[in-house]
This record gives sequence, structure tokens and C-alpha cells, in this order.
Amino acid sequence: MKVIIVGGVAGGATAAARIRRLNEHAEITVFERSGYISYANCGLPYYIGDVITDPEELTLQTPESFFKRFRINMKIHHEVISIHPERKTVSVKNLENGEIFEENYDKLILSPGAKPTQPRLPGVGIDKLFTLRTVEDTFRIKEYINKNHPKSAVLAGGGFIGLELAENLRELGMDVTIVQRPKQLMNPFDPDMASMIHNEMRKHGIKLVLGYTVEGFKGKDNGVEILLKDNPSLQADMVVLAIGVTPDTALAKEAGLELGIKGSIVVNDRMETSVPDIYAAGDAVQVKHYVTGDDALISLAGPANKQGRIIADNICGGDSRYLGSQGSSVIKVFDMTAATTGINETNAKKSGLEVDTVILSPMSHAGYYPGGKVMTMKVVFEKETYRLLGAQIIGYEGVDKRIDVLATAIHAGLKATQLKDLDLAYAPPYSSAKDPVNMAGFMIDNIAKGTLKQWHLEDMDKISKDQNVVLLDVRTVGEFNRGHMDGFNNIPVDELRERINEIEKGKPVYLICQSGLRSYIASRILEGNGYETYNFSGGFRFYDAVVNDRALIERAYACGMDYKK
Amino acid sequence: MKVIIVGGVAGGATAAARIRRLNEHAEITVFERSGYISYANCGLPYYIGDVITDPEELTLQTPESFFKRFRINMKIHHEVISIHPERKTVSVKNLENGEIFEENYDKLILSPGAKPTQPRLPGVGIDKLFTLRTVEDTFRIKEYINKNHPKSAVLAGGGFIGLELAENLRELGMDVTIVQRPKQLMNPFDPDMASMIHNEMRKHGIKLVLGYTVEGFKGKDNGVEILLKDNPSLQADMVVLAIGVTPDTALAKEAGLELGIKGSIVVNDRMETSVPDIYAAGDAVQVKHYVTGDDALISLAGPANKQGRIIADNICGGDSRYLGSQGSSVIKVFDMTAATTGINETNAKKSGLEVDTVILSPMSHAGYYPGGKVMTMKVVFEKETYRLLGAQIIGYEGVDKRIDVLATAIHAGLKATQLKDLDLAYAPPYSSAKDPVNMAGFMIDNIAKGTLKQWHLEDMDKISKDQNVVLLDVRTVGEFNRGHMDGFNNIPVDELRERINEIEKGKPVYLICQSGLRSYIASRILEGNGYETYNFSGGFRFYDAVVNDRALIERAYACGMDYKK
Repeated sequence: MKVIIVGGVAGGATAAARIRRLNEHAEITVFERSGYISYANCGLPYYIGDVITDPEELTLQTPESFFKRFRINMKIHHEVISIHPERKTVSVKNLENGEIFEENYDKLILSPGAKPTQPRLPGVGIDKLFTLRTVEDTFRIKEYINKNHPKSAVLAGGGFIGLELAENLRELGMDVTIVQRPKQLMNPFDPDMASMIHNEMRKHGIKLVLGYTVEGFKGKDNGVEILLKDNPSLQADMVVLAIGVTPDTALAKEAGLELGIKGSIVVNDRMETSVPDIYAAGDAVQVKHYVTGDDALISLAGPANKQGRIIADNICGGDSRYLGSQGSSVIKVFDMTAATTGINETNAKKSGLEVDTVILSPMSHAGYYPGGKVMTMKVVFEKETYRLLGAQIIGYEGVDKRIDVLATAIHAGLKATQLKDLDLAYAPPYSSAKDPVNMAGFMIDNIAKGTLKQWHLEDMDKISKDQNVVLLDVRTVGEFNRGHMDGFNNIPVDELRERINEIEKGKPVYLICQSGLRSYIASRILEGNGYETYNFSGGFRFYDAVVNDRALIERAYACGMDYKK
Repeated sequence: MKVIIVGGVAGGATAAARIRRLNEHAEITVFERSGYISYANCGLPYYIGDVITDPEELTLQTPESFFKRFRINMKIHHEVISIHPERKTVSVKNLENGEIFEENYDKLILSPGAKPTQPRLPGVGIDKLFTLRTVEDTFRIKEYINKNHPKSAVLAGGGFIGLELAENLRELGMDVTIVQRPKQLMNPFDPDMASMIHNEMRKHGIKLVLGYTVEGFKGKDNGVEILLKDNPSLQADMVVLAIGVTPDTALAKEAGLELGIKGSIVVNDRMETSVPDIYAAGDAVQVKHYVTGDDALISLAGPANKQGRIIADNICGGDSRYLGSQGSSVIKVFDMTAATTGINETNAKKSGLEVDTVILSPMSHAGYYPGGKVMTMKVVFEKETYRLLGAQIIGYEGVDKRIDVLATAIHAGLKATQLKDLDLAYAPPYSSAKDPVNMAGFMIDNIAKGTLKQWHLEDMDKISKDQNVVLLDVRTVGEFNRGHMDGFNNIPVDELRERINEIEKGKPVYLICQSGLRSYIASRILEGNGYETYNFSGGFRFYDAVVNDRALIERAYACGMDYKK
């Protein structure tokens, strides 16, 4: 059996190694356009920031080491330029000498990945304008920095790469600005949760220019001018375009393979393309979203590796299936960790689902043990069925743990109410006897049982104008005086029973406290006394963070250059 | 409705607060024998070690704060001395003035907890001999240390409390010895995994005297003499008995409630005892093991809290069910973390299950990102069905995360092979594209598909005597020379194809490398060339740790006082 693989990074390298493990006698050749195979794609920004200092760390394997161990021919600087499915061959160009040759295959695996989206704007392509995808890109940026000592950078785009790069450039001491049209960074998160990320970025001196449209770039002697629509330009010593990636599928298209979203390669659950004996994996393929069942593009390393393994199984006579991608991801944002799995509220609603959410602020571990930190957790579930749809967590330690627990619960098809039953490991340095995930489950169980009714940020406008509701903040007087929502009265929860007559009967009571715990207790006291109550999910802590962030975004937008302050 | 609760810590306090939230008008009284309610049981050793410095941190709530918020009467220093189910009352003794009174209930909740097991040995009860269960015990030990500055301590018993106390006393600069009859600490772990814990304890200067029987204690002017069977005595300035806990159920027994294992209270899944209107929660009750379905005693805070909540629901007209305890737990052992969930191999075999295991040594996060640490993971599953039964992990960062993912997978009833499909969050600081849990799944999937056959530690004796097998170590020559198993030949994996003729055909080949990865590749090369192969689960790294530990235990045993060195 002769196998040809296009692309030697995540999916391609995994498939190659596993095919060898399953078939000692297969002939396996990998063509990789760049000079590197099996490299640590996700580590590249950290090399720029000197967190990873040895460039050899970035390349986990070399063609030589791969051949030695697996007898796989890793042909770097070789680009497959066309596929001929009818005669089962590919045309390959040796990029070092320009030679073109044809190579036949029994099985072909496409793992070409995705390429940075290049906007069609004036000035794209000028010097000092970079993208970051390959090891070569990384060395190029690193070399530019080492040589020219840029003091400032503008990053166009605030997704994973944009944020990781922002942090790493900032840690090098640079002045960093992120500019983009959407008013939130990291769109896997809901806008309210993204506020926590914005606040952390600002805290570390990153300038956020959100809601601005880049119209082009101009090279200058002393850097680059970034042209904004209806606004003064930005200036920087260098620019990195990080507005997203596009499946790199010109080859697949030309060969007549069925394509999907953004030109991605359509595959079935065996990772077979529409053309016999051609498989595809990684960022170039269209997957089923595990939660919605919709077609999706999910560019993550975990799925790519799993898909590579599945292809190897199937090529070697097995029958392995890819069940879909759930979008579990995590990112370090300076001191914080932001993580998500499944779908967010925004996308759930776009998919036509009727959803509810809980927002809570549990501690990473027992409060009495030193070092515990608050995290903000949002869990999204379907109304009526209580199907668990997704979760987002932003905080410090323990965030990645809870997102993986929730990812596992989603994968296993647990209901949101079942989170209360999970038997998780507790000791004071690691968790609480009621783990944050259990707490989310308790809240959702209370909703299911009618013990908890909530109100959310988007209800604020309506209720603040409604004369027939009571707005009540049950924090202490001190907390209330340090900041509260307009229109809210203050009765501390511990005085509520004595002062219950101050609350008008017959009107629904909208409650808030700092985190949502005390207001829940208050709501139960009031319900027990004949009131109808609604509890604010997330508490004032959450409200305040979101509202401050929104004000900062709008102020920057309103004042033109003021965002640079 | 009038509710009486016996015991105001985990289960009792949780039930009390939730009953209030569900019923604003219930009359709720809690009788707590000690002087503290709702205290941080699991934090007590850390107060002794000055990790938690403020004694108020240990007591999350006071009777006053509880009353203020919940209108619950928390009667401390009140002991319920008998239950009269026929007239639905309890007799209560006020421990401060000796007064006894009777109080009626509509619903009674027993949450008496467990007490430290006191061995019937000469000298138990003398001065300088402590147990650690309550806040009072904690203050007693702390005061003794502050006053007398003991230089040495012997801890009888090496479970959770014994280990946490050992660490905390050691951090205070004391000379600490753990003595016990079983030859392993922490019996939720299999003996092989416990070796990792032993090695960490020794590394931090804890003396382990395992396999010795304590026969009694003698008070001395300068401390305590600990008498050992057939061996010289140990000496120490203080002794803590931490040999386990026993359900504190004299009250329940006298009232005629059905009792189970070790006198624990039998309850159904609604947490109802055998007597109407009496419920029970926490360390005093017998639970179903979630994995085996067997009756079990599992003294952990998480289950106690969940059970308290369930009782409250049921008392207030709901129908909540406790699904059983899974035994998920985690402990900090100096720099290490040791965690477990489900059942271990030893107990699985005792339950008559046919099991297999995989042992792996993955990194906590991507190897190319600084700070990654190796963990040792053992996953236990049922042969034939591949039902996931349990997992144990010992390592540094990321251990608690993986155990909770595995706990969730077990709770959800996933098969061990399905671990490969979990979509977990990856970024270099947090994990690898193939998360350790996925890696375990890949290995088990390989076993299921016949691609991986294993051999284990317990096969060592048999194969080392068998002339008809080939024993092959595929590490580098340097690694091999630094230490290897007797009888093994060395061919590095990358030379295996060229030197395959050196391996006798027709004999099964037993392989080992450092972690199990290279030997798996070697096994696939050999199988592809017509050999029958078996891979050592855990690698030389694991073998070496276990064998060294066992030698140290035996040497101590053989040399009498030599264990003090």
C-alpha cells in the first residue's frame, strides 16, 4: 500500500505515524510545503515572547527523526500542486529546485491546514506587515523584532492568535493595540463574558480599538500607518494581521472534491472526501458540530490529531468514526485563563434554540485555604429539555479543569441538572466540597424545580423603565454605597425579614447582590412570604465588569483618538 | 414543620440551610456537640501547619451568623443523647450545665459524622497522644506544639489525615514518622501507585515504618514510647492516632435504626433511614458505591453535602435521589498531587471483576512550553465490556483536572475506549493536543482492537524465569546502562528494523522502554514482522519507582531500627 499525505503538521503527521504502527510495510510519503514538520503550531506566539527560547522546541520532529523511527519519507519544501484522482497520482513541485514530478498513491490524505485570511485592502503585502501561521512566519517576526526593536505593534484581529501575540509582544515591553470591527474579542465567548477578557487585556496595558474598520495600510519610514474608516489613523512600528484563517483548499477544489463552508473540504464521519481513496483532516475540513449537529469550521489541534488517527485506522482496514467537534478551547490571557466548550448563548440563539443560562462566581478552591481565586462561569442549556449546550469560564487557577469537566459532561450527553450529581475530587487546595461545576448544577436544578427564577443583563432596560416592579439590592450598606445599579433600593439580606414591610406587595421583586448567592437567599425569603422574585444571574460583580467594559468601548469609539489613552 | 438536626457540620449544616431556603416557615434546630458548626473539617491539618493562620477561617459560620441569615437555631455544646421515634422526640443534654430536656420533631436528620478509631491498646489515652477530627482537637494539638515545641512526632496511620498531618508537621520542622501495619499508605490507591506517594514522602524526610504493628504506648518524661510487635520501640515527643474513622452511631443504634457496615446507618436513595421521618447523611451513613453497586463507607465532604441537600428536598416535599458515591478524592502530598476516582485494581479484583489497566506517564502540558511535569496515570477498566471502573493519578499540576474528567466520564457511564473521543480544551500552558485522558483512551482503544497487548508488574516473576520468551529493552544504550531490569537485552527502537534478526523468531517478545511509548512502537514493528509482542504498561520509569519503594520497605522491615535512618 502506498500512502501520500499532503501536509506534515498535526493531522498529517499523526496519520503518518499511526499508519506505520498499523502497517509496517506500507510506503508512506508526506509532502510538506514549508521547511518544518510536526511543529508546535500553538506554541509559535510564545517563541516570539521568549517564553519558549529554544527554536528546536518548536519542531517536535525532524524529517530525519521521523524516518529513523517510522520509515516515513518526510519531503519538506515539496508542494503538491495538483491531484489526479482518475489515475490516482499527485503532481509535486520540489520548491528547492523547481522540479515537478508525479507520484502515484493508493490512498491520499489531505492535511493542508488553513492560511491566514488576507483582507483585500490597500497596503497588504508591504514590509512590516506580518501574519503568523508557520515556523517561517515566526522566525520572520522574531528576526524583525530582534533587528529593529519595534516599540509598538498593531494587531488586526482579536482571536486566539491575536490575543496570544498581544500578550507576548507586551511581555517584550512593546506598546500593543488590537483593532478590529467586532466590538468583542474572542468570539467563541458571549459578549458579556468577553468583557472579562477585555478588562484583563486593558489591565495589562493592551489598547483595545474595537468597533473600528481597518481600511488599509501605508508604509512609512518609521513604521506603518493603519487607516481606519471615519477615524484618524493608527501608527505602529509593525502590524500583524490576525483576522482569522481560511481553509487552504485550492488543491482540493481543482481536483473536484466537494467543498463546504469557506471552501473547506467536505468529509463523512470516516473522514473520507467525496472522491474515493482521498481522506482529509484538520483545519481544512468541514466538521459536524457535536452539540448542534450543524456543519462547522473548527480550527483546533485536538480535533486535527483525532482525525488523523481515524484516517489511519480506516486506511488500514478499520472502521473509526469522527463524532464531531465540540469547540473546547482554552487561552491564557496574561494572568487569566479563558476557556469554553460547546456553543455559547449567542450561537445557540442563532441556531434557533430556546436557551437559558446561569452565571456564577465560585472560588477555584476552598475559601479558607490560601490562594483561592474567583472565576466567572456561564453555563448554557436548553430550556424545557435541560440539555447541556455549552459553558464559558474566565478566571485564574482551576478554569481549565472545570471546562474539561463540562466538556466531558457535554460529550457524554448529561443534562445540565445532572451536574449537581458529579462526584468530583475535593481537598482544600484544589476545590470546594461543592465544586463550581456542582454549584452550576444546583442552580440549574433550582430553576428546573421552580425554586429559582432569574433575570439577565438584557432585561435591565425593560425592568428599569417598569414602574410595577421592585428593584432590590441585598448587599450590605457599605457594598451598596461603593456602587450599585440605578433605581435599586438597598436592604441587606440579613435585615430582610425585619424590613419586609418596606417591600411593596403584589409587585415582582428583581434582586441583586454581589455574586448571586445572597440574592438567591433573599429571593427564597421573599417567596416564602408571598412575593414573586427574580434573581440576577452573575451579581453586581458581573454586571459592573460588563457595563464598565461597554462604556470603555463606546468612549473609545466616540472620541476618536482617545482610545490611545 | 419542626425539623431537628443532629450535627452541624457538612451534611447537617447543608440540610439546615436548604430546608430554610425551601421553607421560610419551618422551625429548624441543630444540636451540635462540639463548640463549632459548619467548620472546615478538611482544613484542620493546614491550621496546624500554619498554612491557614487565622483560626476564624476554620469556622465558616457561627451560630449567630447562621441565625441571622437563616433563622436556624444552632445549639452548640448540645448533645442529643437519645431518640424516641415512637413519640418523635429526642433527649438533649446541654453540655455546659448538664441539663437534659426533650424536644419533639416532625422530621429528624442525623448527621453525627464519624469519630477517630481508637485502637484498644495499652497506653491509649495518655498525655501527648492525640487524634484529629474536630476544631477542638486541632486547637489542642496546636497548643501543645506552641507550648512544648516537640521535635518529633509519630503518626499511627497513613490515610488522608495521617498524610496531611505528616506534611504539615514536617513543614513546621519536625521529625515525622508514619507507622502502620499495612505496607502501603493511602489504600484508595493500588500498591504500585502508592509507591509514588511513598517516594515523595521520603524525599521530604518523612520516615515510613510500614508493615509494623503498634502494640501500645508508654508515656515518658521526654515523650512517648511507641511499642512495636517483634521490634524495638519508636520514640517521639508526640503521637497522633490517625488509623481511620468509625461511624458515630451509638445514638442511631440505641434508637433501633437499621445499621450496616461498621455500624453505619442504612439509608435508601432518598436518604431515609429504616425509621419513618428520620433521615441521615454524611460519614455516618452507608452508601452504594456508584461503580460496583456494593454497600460502602465513603467518608468525604462532597457526598455529605450532596446528601444534606437531598434530605432537605425530600423533607420539603420533593423527590431527590442520591445516586451513590464514587470515591473521587485528591490529596496534596508535599509538591505532588495524588488523586483517585472509582475503584482501584485491587478492589475491582476483590469484587470479582475481570479487569485490565493501562499505566501511562503523560506531561501535564505541551512539552515545548515551560513547566510541564510528568504525571503517572493508571486507568482501570473491565475486560470484555471496557466499562470504565476507576483511575488513579499521581503527579504535579493538572492531576486534579484529569481525575475530575475521568470522574465525570465514569459518572456518565462512558466506556474506557470513549476517552479517546473527549473534546478537551488545549493550549500549550494547559494541556497537549492529545490530552493525557485521550492518551489513555488511545491505549485502551488499541487494546480493544488487538493492536496493543500488555504485560504488567505481576507478570515479572513468571517471564523472568521463562526460557521461551525474549526480554527486550528498546531504550537508548545510555538509558539502558543507567539501569534496567535483569535479563533484558537492549536494542534501541530506532535500530530495531536493522537488527531484527538478533531477535529469536517464534518466541513471544516482552518489551519495555522508559514510559511505554517507544516500546509500543517497537511492538508494532515486531508484530509487522511476524512476532508476538507484549508491552510493559508504565515503562521502566514506573517499574523502577515501584521496585525501589518495595526494597526500601523491606529493608526497613528486615533491619529493625534501620528504618530510623
